[in-house]
Amino acid sequence: MAQSHITEIRVRYAETDRMGVVYYANYLVWCEVGRVEFLRARGANYADLEAGGLGLAVAEATVRYLAPARFDDRVRIETILTGVRSRAITFDYVLTHAESGTRLATAYTALVSIDATGRPVAMPAEFREALVGAR
Amino acid sequence: MAQSHITEIRVRYAETDRMGVVYYANYLVWCEVGRVEFLRARGANYADLEAGGLGLAVAEATVRYLAPARFDDRVRIETILTGVRSRAITFDYVLTHAESGTRLATAYTALVSIDATGRPVAMPAEFREALVGAR
Amino acid sequence: MAQSHITEIRVRYAETDRMGVVYYANYLVWCEVGRVEFLRARGANYADLEAGGLGLAVAEATVRYLAPARFDDRVRIETILTGVRSRAITFDYVLTHAESGTRLATAYTALVSIDATGRPVAMPAEFREALVGAR
Amino acid sequence: MAQSHITEIRVRYAETDRMGVVYYANYLVWCEVGRVEFLRARGANYADLEAGGLGLAVAEATVRYLAPARFDDRVRIETILTGVRSRAITFDYVLTHAESGTRLATAYTALVSIDATGRPVAMPAEFREALVGAR
Repeated sequence: MAQSHITEIRVRYAETDRMGVVYYANYLVWCEVGRVEFLRARGANYADLEAGGLGLAVAEATVRYLAPARFDDRVRIETILTGVRSRAITFDYVLTHAESGTRLATAYTALVSIDATGRPVAMPAEFREALVGAR
Repeated sequence: MAQSHITEIRVRYAETDRMGVVYYANYLVWCEVGRVEFLRARGANYADLEAGGLGLAVAEATVRYLAPARFDDRVRIETILTGVRSRAITFDYVLTHAESGTRLATAYTALVSIDATGRPVAMPAEFREALVGAR
Repeated sequence: MAQSHITEIRVRYAETDRMGVVYYANYLVWCEVGRVEFLRARGANYADLEAGGLGLAVAEATVRYLAPARFDDRVRIETILTGVRSRAITFDYVLTHAESGTRLATAYTALVSIDATGRPVAMPAEFREALVGAR
Repeated sequence: MAQSHITEIRVRYAETDRMGVVYYANYLVWCEVGRVEFLRARGANYADLEAGGLGLAVAEATVRYLAPARFDDRVRIETILTGVRSRAITFDYVLTHAESGTRLATAYTALVSIDATGRPVAMPAEFREALVGAR
């Protein structure tokens, strides 16, 4: 099921801190961008999912910081689906400096599908199938 | 009606940028903190207002940056109510370095009360009265 | 001298707030993205400018919010150079919903060129010339 | 060496997302606030450390999200020093809803002391001693 999607962002000035590099929390924002684009590429639009009353809440997130990203760098985000169950999805991420190929960070998130009241619920079958690219 | 409220925040590392000072958009976050505390001091809790189906949307914001704020600085936010109409509120802000007294920025925001669909609506009379400190 | 540049961003989940729309401070982040791309399109790389010991500090910023931007919207940022002097640059911005063409916001920023100590200094002639597209 | 420090923040509107709860990356910002206050309480000012040419770069961060934090909630951040070596520090964090006592999240960060060029260097002895409360 090794499924992945690659997207790219450019580091914004707003994302840097006074150490001159990207502030550590912002890598999780980029992971979210990667996830949304992964879903879009599979026709599983996240905004539509929410319009249907469902959300994906992050239950756990880990980032390993390997090399700093800097202002104006182009960063390549590889989002890898590593698991899908009825109420849970896990992704790995590999963030790379687009020009040099330097690995900047790896990350992991576990998401749980919840309804409007915050309770875990099963994802719609068609959403799960879209995720794994089944037909 | 010169009504004002003072609150204080401490600059977070996350709020700085690689110029070594606070990123310019973050001053608007601090103005929001000042507004919320202004309201709370008058018994007009903003979370309660939203629980009642009403929101305050920003229609205009201006910041004049006078001196940079830096990591770990304590910043004094003076929030000054300058106008209240049935559907609109305006605030001025004066941001000062708490220790040195240096003026860091002045700001202005105009807010419009909206319902859940985003349409302008009159604020509840009790909310407006609380705002201006009437009894 | 009506010079402008258009770039586009997609609204991130991180940029929304619990009102369901983009948090008001984030429009200033998008203006920064617009400015950086304006400069790049003229060969005036902002990272290079800083590498040379110069920065552009925002002295004033204004945003007028016309319609809300929402998660996953594509937003078109038009950055318009409105003035260049030896130590100062002004830009206007028009933010538009890329699909519907709805105008979301207009903005204005005034920037001052400063050295590493924060003092206003003249910009290099070649930088100013690049800005206005002179040859 | 079970050393901990407690500080408290109030959730800002800026920190929420359209799910109506705090956006997941912001918990790492709060961990940073907790760390800085932990250090301050031990007389080990982080701004001073950086003024001496040293920084603490995050090498790894993990957050487990247990219950959502919402706008205007007061959040109690307990920062627990779990390890100090010559070039590395580890912290655990427990984030709790201040009023209800509900546990919101637990987190972990590993930090490495680096010089201005980003190379790992030993922390000053007095800084390490301050950290562990030695005399």
